[in-house]
Amino acid sequence: MWMDTKTEEEAASRSRARLSRRGLNSLLLCAGDMEHLDKCMQDKLFVLQLAVWGLRGVSRVIYVNNPLSGALILAALYWASPWQGLLAVLGVLASTLTAVIIGQDSAEVSGGLHGFNGILVSLLMGVFSSAGDWYWWLLLPVCLGSATCVFLFSGLSSVMGRWDLPVAVFPFNIIIVLYLLCTGPGNPYFPHHPAVPAWALEPNGTKLIAVEVMRGVVLGVGQIFACGALGPSLLILGAVLLYSPLLAVHAVLGSAVGTLAGLSMAVRHDSLYSGLSGFNGALGCMAVGGLFFTFSWRTHLFAIASAFLSAYADIALSNLLGTVGLPACSWAATLTTTLMLLLTGSLAAYRIPTGQVMAPELNLCSRSQWEAGNAEERESTDV
Amino acid sequence: MWMDTKTEEEAASRSRARLSRRGLNSLLLCAGDMEHLDKCMQDKLFVLQLAVWGLRGVSRVIYVNNPLSGALILAALYWASPWQGLLAVLGVLASTLTAVIIGQDSAEVSGGLHGFNGILVSLLMGVFSSAGDWYWWLLLPVCLGSATCVFLFSGLSSVMGRWDLPVAVFPFNIIIVLYLLCTGPGNPYFPHHPAVPAWALEPNGTKLIAVEVMRGVVLGVGQIFACGALGPSLLILGAVLLYSPLLAVHAVLGSAVGTLAGLSMAVRHDSLYSGLSGFNGALGCMAVGGLFFTFSWRTHLFAIASAFLSAYADIALSNLLGTVGLPACSWAATLTTTLMLLLTGSLAAYRIPTGQVMAPELNLCSRSQWEAGNAEERESTDV
Amino acid sequence: MWMDTKTEEEAASRSRARLSRRGLNSLLLCAGDMEHLDKCMQDKLFVLQLAVWGLRGVSRVIYVNNPLSGALILAALYWASPWQGLLAVLGVLASTLTAVIIGQDSAEVSGGLHGFNGILVSLLMGVFSSAGDWYWWLLLPVCLGSATCVFLFSGLSSVMGRWDLPVAVFPFNIIIVLYLLCTGPGNPYFPHHPAVPAWALEPNGTKLIAVEVMRGVVLGVGQIFACGALGPSLLILGAVLLYSPLLAVHAVLGSAVGTLAGLSMAVRHDSLYSGLSGFNGALGCMAVGGLFFTFSWRTHLFAIASAFLSAYADIALSNLLGTVGLPACSWAATLTTTLMLLLTGSLAAYRIPTGQVMAPELNLCSRSQWEAGNAEERESTDV
Repeated sequence: MWMDTKTEEEAASRSRARLSRRGLNSLLLCAGDMEHLDKCMQDKLFVLQLAVWGLRGVSRVIYVNNPLSGALILAALYWASPWQGLLAVLGVLASTLTAVIIGQDSAEVSGGLHGFNGILVSLLMGVFSSAGDWYWWLLLPVCLGSATCVFLFSGLSSVMGRWDLPVAVFPFNIIIVLYLLCTGPGNPYFPHHPAVPAWALEPNGTKLIAVEVMRGVVLGVGQIFACGALGPSLLILGAVLLYSPLLAVHAVLGSAVGTLAGLSMAVRHDSLYSGLSGFNGALGCMAVGGLFFTFSWRTHLFAIASAFLSAYADIALSNLLGTVGLPACSWAATLTTTLMLLLTGSLAAYRIPTGQVMAPELNLCSRSQWEAGNAEERESTDV
Repeated sequence: MWMDTKTEEEAASRSRARLSRRGLNSLLLCAGDMEHLDKCMQDKLFVLQLAVWGLRGVSRVIYVNNPLSGALILAALYWASPWQGLLAVLGVLASTLTAVIIGQDSAEVSGGLHGFNGILVSLLMGVFSSAGDWYWWLLLPVCLGSATCVFLFSGLSSVMGRWDLPVAVFPFNIIIVLYLLCTGPGNPYFPHHPAVPAWALEPNGTKLIAVEVMRGVVLGVGQIFACGALGPSLLILGAVLLYSPLLAVHAVLGSAVGTLAGLSMAVRHDSLYSGLSGFNGALGCMAVGGLFFTFSWRTHLFAIASAFLSAYADIALSNLLGTVGLPACSWAATLTTTLMLLLTGSLAAYRIPTGQVMAPELNLCSRSQWEAGNAEERESTDV
Repeated sequence: MWMDTKTEEEAASRSRARLSRRGLNSLLLCAGDMEHLDKCMQDKLFVLQLAVWGLRGVSRVIYVNNPLSGALILAALYWASPWQGLLAVLGVLASTLTAVIIGQDSAEVSGGLHGFNGILVSLLMGVFSSAGDWYWWLLLPVCLGSATCVFLFSGLSSVMGRWDLPVAVFPFNIIIVLYLLCTGPGNPYFPHHPAVPAWALEPNGTKLIAVEVMRGVVLGVGQIFACGALGPSLLILGAVLLYSPLLAVHAVLGSAVGTLAGLSMAVRHDSLYSGLSGFNGALGCMAVGGLFFTFSWRTHLFAIASAFLSAYADIALSNLLGTVGLPACSWAATLTTTLMLLLTGSLAAYRIPTGQVMAPELNLCSRSQWEAGNAEERESTDV
């Protein structure tokens, strides 16, 4: 049983145990990191294990580490487009299997760390392809691209590990840019839509519709998975909510901040309506607000600053990469988050070491308990 | 009193004390790092302290660390254009205050290290803006951009500190490029002049005027502050002279080398006349000749090599960034200086640890004393 | 005599001693690293020493460390074009002499580590120049560019040494790109041919000729030295064969893989025929297959993966850099090799520390002996 409070148990499971005493047992079994699942799975079939690793990988894209959330997100992707759903499954499996084959650290593999770049590469390859759905040749670059992510993840982690930085979605961003450059706009086998910088298009002619902008804020969460439909976006938001309400709040907040930044720079309206202005802000806000830093009002303000920075950097990078026909993907949020993690000063005091990052609520709980000190600790052991 | 020679005094103040005995007391109070001022300011009003930090920040742009030089430079900027002077003050205050608020190291803040990127961002935003002077909306990006420099400075110093490298003006270069990309050429709120690569313009039609080229060498020093007028440029040079004559000589020498490099590559004449060809050379030459390395004939030759490298790299980067409408700013000098600081071999023997960098004369003095050995040391303590 | 087996002899010379007992003495004197030559040269004239250092530098371009191979390669370059041969000699001498003057580590200089970037810079400057052969002014940038490589090599090695990464041809790639940017397409003194991205040209109109493609695979080895003639390419391949047959096999294999990757992406036919599609694959394959990693079937598979990665990355980077008129040089292979060296997992177990890299056969030999254990060791010392 995962609920007994042995002394050698780490802070994470202890904090969960406390919460569960307050009657949230049944919900908590599905919320949070679901570490107990890993223990149940240890002697199961490899295929079942792989499924859990893959689902964790799917959820990791949006800073969630929960197989159930992963399943919900996968369902949302199928709902939006069955072809994209297929690509997502293929991408996450290709990269996770590659990681197993080339002998990556098994804790990383089972935590889904080798899956989330693969799924993003496969989804974006599908989105940018101009050959339409069910173009089976696309599965070839999807598998190869997803597999290559593992190489980049492993190599980059050697470098970034020196500063205790997560590799995040750098591999995805590099691979998708290389793929689009490699195929070019006129490739006979793998054609794709080129991106254009905002200034090359005609300026906004129509009036801004407030409801559409509100819709765009929600779609911003879906756009993290390159999904532009409202229903699936809400389902993805629900999957985040299941893992951590605090993270879900920051996702919507960040998306709103990103949309605001887009408005201040007069970006094109369809970019606001589709949620493309918001998703970098959402990612930047989630990373700082509670995930890599203990939640507090100060961290919350930094999260908003991070969302603004991500959003403006995204506009800048879209314009830069657009000149050579490339999309900005999530470069802006990834770079901004890396910058925030490197920051010294008052934010650094809230930094959680990369290896100990859990759901924001658990991060908060374990720190508040730790600060409440040994008094309560003694009391609980007396009982 | 700062002149008594206690044993716990560090080499810096001791070497100054030696010089002062030779009758330069009154001038030296204003020259050099003016560390004695910091002690006088400790219990003064915050506003006064902030002013000194800001003025140090202004002077740091040109590798000077002296509030009086900062005041002279600020006067020069006001002289050239009151609007630019206002932006400069706002930029340096915005970034210094941000550094105080987000809890950066107080020694760094009081040394002006968080101000010099802010002033550069605000000055360049003003120069590139095509909305004319006194366009008050510009104050918004000026404040935000300057504040963001602190985030970049802090983040980059975590990475570059591993190699004992100074962050230099990397934050300024990144922010100004992102700002120009973000607004784009046709932004309705913040329009700006796009840069064009040299090869897109018609070639030089007229004959080169030698006097104008000479003038351009002096303007090259002013262009470090984006100032293209002769009088203010001379005043800025005077501010450097007050801090360190050696640095001033290297500034003019570097600017001349840069102009020479420009001539050898047949750059456009107006680039030579305006000093834009020279300022990267000047920065590259100043950094190596006496500042980060003890001055000697060998260092002097490396300084000239560094000036050439900076100047040629600037021409190359101008052409590269010009293709997407961006200016090269001081990327070339910053990268070259970083390279020189990383160099192994005979130059590394003259390297001064980043934390102990003072005015070139003091660097030289403290090293020559240190080499003269303990004999003199003992003699002075006997007295 | 270099064959006696003293206990203080390192594994390298011991493994060579073993092989030599099997009757390969005379050939082995010319094959492998030829370390015995260094000992003979120690008290010779500086000019003779410089020649050996330079020839090692020439061979280092293709991961060979053997002065005789260097001489063969130089002969091949003269055969292809006497002007290119002259530039090659000048480039390697300029950079090696600069390294001596600015006081670089003498072991590095005598190992030819400061020569191979210089020769590449000078060869490529000659190839891209549109002023024709025997344009004597070109010697000026050739000397300066080659000399600058030493600065970059030294600076980059300080950074990359933290991860035990070789600097490889990063300096060459940086300098040639800066040179081409600096001069631009319309420079009156140093004109050069601009590169164009593949998609800007008309698509392939004719049918693919299989024999020409086969020829292109061999030319791919020559293209490492920017040499597009069949005879000299075969001579270069022979020079590699002299040093290490395993390396030569991987060179041809990698070039074939690169050509295959080019076919899969429908690159232009003349790029396949000229060997330009193959040379990055060849470099990527050689580095992983036996050089930086002990040879085994697993490493061999990784070498093929590395060749594919290099080749695809080269197509991508050619398209990217082509948009600003720049060639991709060997950026792709250099970056891919760096990535492979950073990889954790099963490949890292075969990693040879950068300082101990020898010819693949010797790497293999010293490891197999080491694994055979002390039993054989004891036996041999008994004799």
